[in-house]
Amino acid sequence: MKYPLYSFVRPYLMTRSLQPENQETPIQFIKTDTMDNRLFYRRNHFSYPTISHSNYWLPINGLVTTPKWFSMNEIVRLPSKTIKVVLECSGDKRDLFEPKVFGEQWGKGAISQGNWKGVSLRTLLKQVGMKDDAKQVVVEGYDNGKRTDLDTIHTYARGLPIDKALHPDTIIAYEYNNQPIPFKHGYPLRLIVPEWYAMASVKWIKQISIIDSNFSGPFQSIDYVYYPNKENDKNAFPVTTININSTIQKPLNMEVLNTGNHLIEGIAWTGKGYITKVEISTDNGETWLKTNLCQQPKEDYGWSSWVFEWSVSAKGEYSIMTKATDSYNRIQPTTPFWNRKGYGYNGIEIIKVKIE
Amino acid sequence: MKYPLYSFVRPYLMTRSLQPENQETPIQFIKTDTMDNRLFYRRNHFSYPTISHSNYWLPINGLVTTPKWFSMNEIVRLPSKTIKVVLECSGDKRDLFEPKVFGEQWGKGAISQGNWKGVSLRTLLKQVGMKDDAKQVVVEGYDNGKRTDLDTIHTYARGLPIDKALHPDTIIAYEYNNQPIPFKHGYPLRLIVPEWYAMASVKWIKQISIIDSNFSGPFQSIDYVYYPNKENDKNAFPVTTININSTIQKPLNMEVLNTGNHLIEGIAWTGKGYITKVEISTDNGETWLKTNLCQQPKEDYGWSSWVFEWSVSAKGEYSIMTKATDSYNRIQPTTPFWNRKGYGYNGIEIIKVKIE
Repeated sequence: MKYPLYSFVRPYLMTRSLQPENQETPIQFIKTDTMDNRLFYRRNHFSYPTISHSNYWLPINGLVTTPKWFSMNEIVRLPSKTIKVVLECSGDKRDLFEPKVFGEQWGKGAISQGNWKGVSLRTLLKQVGMKDDAKQVVVEGYDNGKRTDLDTIHTYARGLPIDKALHPDTIIAYEYNNQPIPFKHGYPLRLIVPEWYAMASVKWIKQISIIDSNFSGPFQSIDYVYYPNKENDKNAFPVTTININSTIQKPLNMEVLNTGNHLIEGIAWTGKGYITKVEISTDNGETWLKTNLCQQPKEDYGWSSWVFEWSVSAKGEYSIMTKATDSYNRIQPTTPFWNRKGYGYNGIEIIKVKIE
Repeated sequence: MKYPLYSFVRPYLMTRSLQPENQETPIQFIKTDTMDNRLFYRRNHFSYPTISHSNYWLPINGLVTTPKWFSMNEIVRLPSKTIKVVLECSGDKRDLFEPKVFGEQWGKGAISQGNWKGVSLRTLLKQVGMKDDAKQVVVEGYDNGKRTDLDTIHTYARGLPIDKALHPDTIIAYEYNNQPIPFKHGYPLRLIVPEWYAMASVKWIKQISIIDSNFSGPFQSIDYVYYPNKENDKNAFPVTTININSTIQKPLNMEVLNTGNHLIEGIAWTGKGYITKVEISTDNGETWLKTNLCQQPKEDYGWSSWVFEWSVSAKGEYSIMTKATDSYNRIQPTTPFWNRKGYGYNGIEIIKVKIE
């Protein structure tokens, strides 16, 4: 009897907290474009809700001409689309901020992607008929609980501006990678808002309401707001579009390598347009060289992989830096925008290696 | 149909590398004294070996009067003992060194413990009869491969001084927590050396040899050596006994808490004697208060849990520091001993929290 069977090696989620469950994708070890849901990062605000599937209905109400309850059967029979979407938590890379910010210390792995299939929210909104004074579409989840900063029970809910709600690629998804959405990721229905940080992509949809004002729930007015100042809330503004960003997957930070040729590998993504360029520097930013970019199809919202062959003959310590650019000419900054709650980190990626 | 079934939440190992497999225990989330082997940290130097179980024999040779091959049946029939042992990788907490050191960036989770059952190495050595000029007992594993710094194939092997080898609690283990040792942790036989960092506890034992010199394999002469200088190997000395140490499990670093009472929880451990005291400071080290220590039985080599009830009424940012002391009066230092390869970090544990 031999034991190669037990020597199977795989990466796991990295646990940030258990109540609620927050677990990070081991992004350095993800080599595929459509991620196994077991490695999809988990970001929760409360414990998991209990949902009755056999009796599941999606109500759409508020400022509409015909309020309606949609059954699952009705939803899956409507015209569908499948889109590849990066979901990135706005707290991704929070642990890289200097000065450090309080909150969950996410590393580089609060990001995942795969194929989501569903019906355009637009299609459903047409059926109920939005009134002229409609301003936001509020999507409420089944998850709720007590926030540490407020004494009352709150439901996770987010308001989406009408134009974003009507974008044909904003979908009510019911499948992830050709399977029903895994329970922990929003079964049976999850809103998917491409190009925005993932706080917008509400899980376990309970209800959709059209309102004539800006939604002011705590996950819109307290959290997911950029606060530029440490001591006060001046000049605060909401978190929306994903920033231009990149991550080095290989080598690992502080890795020891030999002289010779090494493949430097990673991903780049943006919430505006598409990635046009990823550059790399191994001399502390003095010179930048283009990496070999494997561009995503323009109709997708996935990340782009890139690779760079590094030939290094001199021993010593090196910084490897990467800088992505998108089709709106947004470029990763040297110093990212510091904000008190630590959202949207997208500074030029830097790792160190030692060549022996 | 309801879905509480899928809402089960558990921590996972944190992936440091896959080739070889190095995965860290989510130590902040471990609440038990004898850890589930699925959460036991994995530290490998090579890919997993292939071992024939049906034909497994343990040879002991070298400077002995009667070289012998022990069968598994023979070994399990000898007098056994079960001991609770902390295994800590000497690279545990490496990512905390300042200045940073190169190498795998282990956090606080390269440590695990549980019950190991086996026969004293001493018992086996008596059967083969060590000669008078015996100086070290070399234990070789089945794992081997190419090191990045050498061109030849090496086997993982370590030399143990005779006195440590003859200590009755240095055992050849065949069970972990009342089960055969899991393959990834050394099945069928693993050397367990209590009180020493875990590089001494060789997995998948292939052979034991008695020699009359100090063993000089690369895992003894290159790795697992403290190099106090960045640029040269002067004053180097071997890694052996586990340093006095402690870890805060709760709260998490950079966590945001309310005013009121909070339980601060953690563990402390040492390779010499036992833990006598764990102190805590919430005012940057000005005053220290004793935590409530749940001491391990003195015959065990496990960690001791501790807890402290913290009452905090003033909002603001706080450092929480812990400092353990052992029965040899070893105390965690403010500034740990920096060494180039980053072994044995045991600085006073510090985390930050914000009270809102």
